[in-house]
Amino acid sequence: MVQYTQPHLDSVFAALADSTRRGVLEQLGRSEASITDLADRFHMTLTGMRKHVGVLEQAGLVVTEKVGRVRTCRIGARRLEEVAEWIERYHQLWDARFGELDQVIEELKRKENSDGHERTT
Amino acid sequence: MVQYTQPHLDSVFAALADSTRRGVLEQLGRSEASITDLADRFHMTLTGMRKHVGVLEQAGLVVTEKVGRVRTCRIGARRLEEVAEWIERYHQLWDARFGELDQVIEELKRKENSDGHERTT
Repeated sequence: MVQYTQPHLDSVFAALADSTRRGVLEQLGRSEASITDLADRFHMTLTGMRKHVGVLEQAGLVVTEKVGRVRTCRIGARRLEEVAEWIERYHQLWDARFGELDQVIEELKRKENSDGHERTT
Repeated sequence: MVQYTQPHLDSVFAALADSTRRGVLEQLGRSEASITDLADRFHMTLTGMRKHVGVLEQAGLVVTEKVGRVRTCRIGARRLEEVAEWIERYHQLWDARFGELDQVIEELKRKENSDGHERTT
């Protein structure tokens, strides 16, 4: 079986598997922010927020820059296109699979109706 | 700050954060399969595959049914719409944010050009 190995997709999905990290991305989508701002906003310690931002940074979803004592966070260049593409491909498989089931059910119904028809005539 | 807590989204993203599990979903998108089939296909022990399928099942992405000694796996009812919606929302923020940056750059360019123009006249 051909296997598509997309190790970065693993890290992107893992980074998104946390509601705080998704919230941070949404927040940074609105405006850049320091780690302190983000920690305040999400009622979290600086250490906790640094860890979350680190995971997002590793996945390419966030970039940070330290100027003096302040580390500013922005959304990164990874636009989740690959994630969206994977989901789209899976959706197509899903639809096709359930489309087949619908067809089987339709055929069963048709068969049932025509059997019923044969009996009544 | 309003926080949207979507705990099931956490488990869905976490389930997708593994290339074997994504491969299993794609495979089940094509046809149902037993744990043994899947373990063979992905060159994995039965125990390893059972764990992966368990994670997918917990997230609602796969359903399994045991008949006799064979556990058959199918894709579940969770269609990843919520995941797709979240990504779409994030994309819109991303585009808006980078759209703003483009605008700032455009304005800076315009300003530079008109300054240059003022100097030359």
